[in-house]
Amino acid sequence: MDIKEFFEQSAGRWFSQRTSHHLAFKQAENGKSDITIEMIAADAPEVVQLCQQYEVDPDSAICGARVTWDGTMDWDEEKHQGSTVLVPVADPDKPNEGKLLREMGYAEKAPVAGRYIMGDDQALTLITDYETMYSEERLWFASPNLRLRTSILKRFGGFSMASMSSEIRMGVTKPPQESQDAAAKT
Amino acid sequence: MDIKEFFEQSAGRWFSQRTSHHLAFKQAENGKSDITIEMIAADAPEVVQLCQQYEVDPDSAICGARVTWDGTMDWDEEKHQGSTVLVPVADPDKPNEGKLLREMGYAEKAPVAGRYIMGDDQALTLITDYETMYSEERLWFASPNLRLRTSILKRFGGFSMASMSSEIRMGVTKPPQESQDAAAKT
Repeated sequence: MDIKEFFEQSAGRWFSQRTSHHLAFKQAENGKSDITIEMIAADAPEVVQLCQQYEVDPDSAICGARVTWDGTMDWDEEKHQGSTVLVPVADPDKPNEGKLLREMGYAEKAPVAGRYIMGDDQALTLITDYETMYSEERLWFASPNLRLRTSILKRFGGFSMASMSSEIRMGVTKPPQESQDAAAKT
Repeated sequence: MDIKEFFEQSAGRWFSQRTSHHLAFKQAENGKSDITIEMIAADAPEVVQLCQQYEVDPDSAICGARVTWDGTMDWDEEKHQGSTVLVPVADPDKPNEGKLLREMGYAEKAPVAGRYIMGDDQALTLITDYETMYSEERLWFASPNLRLRTSILKRFGGFSMASMSSEIRMGVTKPPQESQDAAAKT
């Protein structure tokens, strides 16, 4: 499976259960959310715009996905709602690795591209290295309808949190609408 | 890292937080336990006895470990306490894979050996295939003092549970006492 196939298999509506182990407090926090993942064509305006923001050639975008979530975590009252666009860009010399561009949140000052590595074991590893935070996430499919995700968060050099999400497919979304150009290539 | 090094790095006292996502119920259950892992020499009596029980040549045992746990899970009142012996036995033709022998519980009728695969990414995969149950577990070290573990459980062909444990090292245990014979070899 390559990164595009991984994104394609991820497209759909998911029910996600998430648990975070706060390591210093020895406490677990549970949460639930609905997640929708929709594929976007590699030449869609939002993909091109994101590439430009990260100063990456838009032609090197492999595909795009819009991820929307709506959920709750036990420890706070507020709704966790949001949406982002993800765009993988392969390394020229490493076909299974590359950058993962992500639409910035309002709180972020500068765009931080993550790294992705598509493993031989069909698992996708995502690494994001912020100034004071480091996160390593692993996603894999136990079956086409069950996606699992673990992540480890380091703050100021020490591990602070380990999380797991189990995501059950609730439905599918439409395939991306390709441009004339992309459709002609197939 | 090979399987023996993985066991050696696992030796010690750990505080473990565990969460199980019951997939059909969409519910999460948290638990905590203290785990102690002690190395046992490959020629120790309990290792030899376990090999004989599984009809495996005791000389093919790579090492042994005694795992003791004492914990609680949220959904029940009873203490989860127990102890078992684990013995990895390498495949003659696959140095990073093999059988994992395990001391039987009282409830089990026949010994069921699991399979282990030590991956290039330093993660240990354990697969146990019972008559009506299939479990796949992945263990890895985020750091020498933080061990993570995910598992997926299938019952009657369908996924029923996904679990994560985060294990923080609380102390070390003594190295195994080697026999005269084993010590002479080093």
